[in-house]
Amino acid sequence: MKPVRVISSHQVFDGGLIQVKVDTVLFPNGNQRERETVHHPGAVAILPVLPDGKMVLVRQYRYATGRPLLEVPAGTLDPGESPDACALRELAEETGYQTKSLRRLCQFYCSPGWADEVLYAFVATDLVNGESSPEEDEDLELVEVAPDDVQRLIAQGEIADAKTIVSLLGYLGLRLPIQ
Amino acid sequence: MKPVRVISSHQVFDGGLIQVKVDTVLFPNGNQRERETVHHPGAVAILPVLPDGKMVLVRQYRYATGRPLLEVPAGTLDPGESPDACALRELAEETGYQTKSLRRLCQFYCSPGWADEVLYAFVATDLVNGESSPEEDEDLELVEVAPDDVQRLIAQGEIADAKTIVSLLGYLGLRLPIQ
Repeated sequence: MKPVRVISSHQVFDGGLIQVKVDTVLFPNGNQRERETVHHPGAVAILPVLPDGKMVLVRQYRYATGRPLLEVPAGTLDPGESPDACALRELAEETGYQTKSLRRLCQFYCSPGWADEVLYAFVATDLVNGESSPEEDEDLELVEVAPDDVQRLIAQGEIADAKTIVSLLGYLGLRLPIQ
Repeated sequence: MKPVRVISSHQVFDGGLIQVKVDTVLFPNGNQRERETVHHPGAVAILPVLPDGKMVLVRQYRYATGRPLLEVPAGTLDPGESPDACALRELAEETGYQTKSLRRLCQFYCSPGWADEVLYAFVATDLVNGESSPEEDEDLELVEVAPDDVQRLIAQGEIADAKTIVSLLGYLGLRLPIQ
């Protein structure tokens, strides 16, 4: 797979969360194309599993999508923060739980066609109750979900985001019904 | 879950693929925050399954991530195009296969914290060989992957994007090893 060559690169937006650029790229076959790409610092998702097998999800309104979603606890990496440290911080902030049993499930690009965001997915067990301290603008509702309910919640569209579906399917080994 | 109120909204980038805006939003608890969000037209992913159970993936260099990835065939919705029509078009363009057996697996937001992109995931069986016609700047290599190889390819990071992991786990019902 031959490399591409960047002819020009222009940053068109430099925000607090994301940066956007438009690059002109020469492909190995000689074609020249523009590519719009978004830089994102990366994020973590944590699947907290209780002793009875239920999992702790959070329901919150997502401004970008215009609707509430039922998701695994998650958050963006702070500058210089490791994925493990970020996972422990976000778990505590959003659910109040702390743990010494944080393990990696997988990592993936969310939208590799146009963004570089990497999502690091974790599973947390041996949860110890602490106190949650969500960011002040977060309106989070904790929801305990049983493994038997996962396929239905995905099919109904209440669980409808990549990191939550990957975490639940990868941890539980569930098939999705094909329609 | 009370609604938020938009105080102001400014488009900061209007590209051929994405639009970016910065909104000032009033949350139900009285806090005012800026939100950077990306609008994307949505996309499809198709898991093509051969009669012997192997699945047809495509390896391609992804400019946004700076590396090649092994992915399910996929593509962006054209204006006014239905997810089903887009799936059949992208399947034919990228793999050369056609089918009358296209079924829905699930749909999800890729990055609901900051983007509205929805991914519609399909499974295609009863594949008929046609002729592939990738866009001229696409340098695609078709790779047939056996179900037994999926967990290893994800663990090794060769398969490393949300839509491909969701499609493979959801179709095959595989657990990911926790590390």
